[in-house]
Amino acid sequence: MTAPRKTPDRSRRSARSRRAIFDAALALIGEVGYAATTIEGIAAKAGVGKQTIYRWWPSKAAVLLDAFLDLGDQAAMAAGADDRASAIPDSGDLEADLKLVLRATVDELGDPKYDLPFRALAAEGAVNEDLGVEVVERLLRPQRQLYVERLRAAREAGQLREDSDLEIAVDLLVSPLAQRWLQRTGPVTHEYAEALVEHVLRGLTR
Amino acid sequence: MTAPRKTPDRSRRSARSRRAIFDAALALIGEVGYAATTIEGIAAKAGVGKQTIYRWWPSKAAVLLDAFLDLGDQAAMAAGADDRASAIPDSGDLEADLKLVLRATVDELGDPKYDLPFRALAAEGAVNEDLGVEVVERLLRPQRQLYVERLRAAREAGQLREDSDLEIAVDLLVSPLAQRWLQRTGPVTHEYAEALVEHVLRGLTR
Repeated sequence: MTAPRKTPDRSRRSARSRRAIFDAALALIGEVGYAATTIEGIAAKAGVGKQTIYRWWPSKAAVLLDAFLDLGDQAAMAAGADDRASAIPDSGDLEADLKLVLRATVDELGDPKYDLPFRALAAEGAVNEDLGVEVVERLLRPQRQLYVERLRAAREAGQLREDSDLEIAVDLLVSPLAQRWLQRTGPVTHEYAEALVEHVLRGLTR
Repeated sequence: MTAPRKTPDRSRRSARSRRAIFDAALALIGEVGYAATTIEGIAAKAGVGKQTIYRWWPSKAAVLLDAFLDLGDQAAMAAGADDRASAIPDSGDLEADLKLVLRATVDELGDPKYDLPFRALAAEGAVNEDLGVEVVERLLRPQRQLYVERLRAAREAGQLREDSDLEIAVDLLVSPLAQRWLQRTGPVTHEYAEALVEHVLRGLTR
């Protein structure tokens, strides 16, 4: 079966609708939370028919997850990367590279465009196991994998302890920042991100 | 003003009502989430009049937070401590003491009695800033302080680097486990807790 070739106009309209739907979805989830966000509400806010959304996505969770993935794409493009799954830079200086990436994460978490929608998604993922598993697989795992790869390169270059567990290393780099932001246990700043990297790499004991 | 002296019978009744209210509150929040849990629902489930609850607590958040604090008291008593705010043991071996405490945390997070209510509280605290701040001040900060004190003793004994930041050290010990549990990014086991402590103390670099 051959799909009818889209005219440029139709593609442009589709891209515009997609953008409007993502923007509406993120705004709504930030305003009213995950549970109260509906396909109907997204359609109304985006100015499209709800059939348009149902044609492209099987469920509310699917459109919201795509909206978050798109937000990641936008952030990566704003940072000059080709796509979301761009590697963590490898300058040979692991500490400097990790500080660069975590400072960027601090900026992202402090951006109101991300803050409320991400909180709503994290909150729902905590209590809704199906959604939580999808968030991990589609959103978190690919991001964590970038850290694993950068850390593996450092270990292969002889910079890390041979017996270091890379999944635990990623936990140490990303969880404290994520928890501090989500639970508001302290300020989320560039200084914190940098001190965190130093503590993780050097350890606590003398 | 002198409060009327309570007869033993009346105290026993109060203690029984309090326990029934806490149990009902934790069960309900686990079943229907924070938002849908009401004073009326708690009263009905506990078999008390809702005026009993309103007499003792000013708000739903207040009764739920007290229920969680009481859960902490129960866990501490089950572990043989005198009260919730019992210090982390100091055997002189920091690594062993931290592993002991984090293994106990793993057991607590894996207990169905805690899992759903804590998820509901964490989820609501993420999106409801007033509640989030109360959870930090009343529930998390006192727990974190126990780690700070144990780590300070280790630093004073010359076991930790002089320049280690104790708040960051606590983040490194508690956030990876909390995030892994909340987001389900990996198994929450004794083995994980032990490897985590080793990585935090020794650092990643050679």
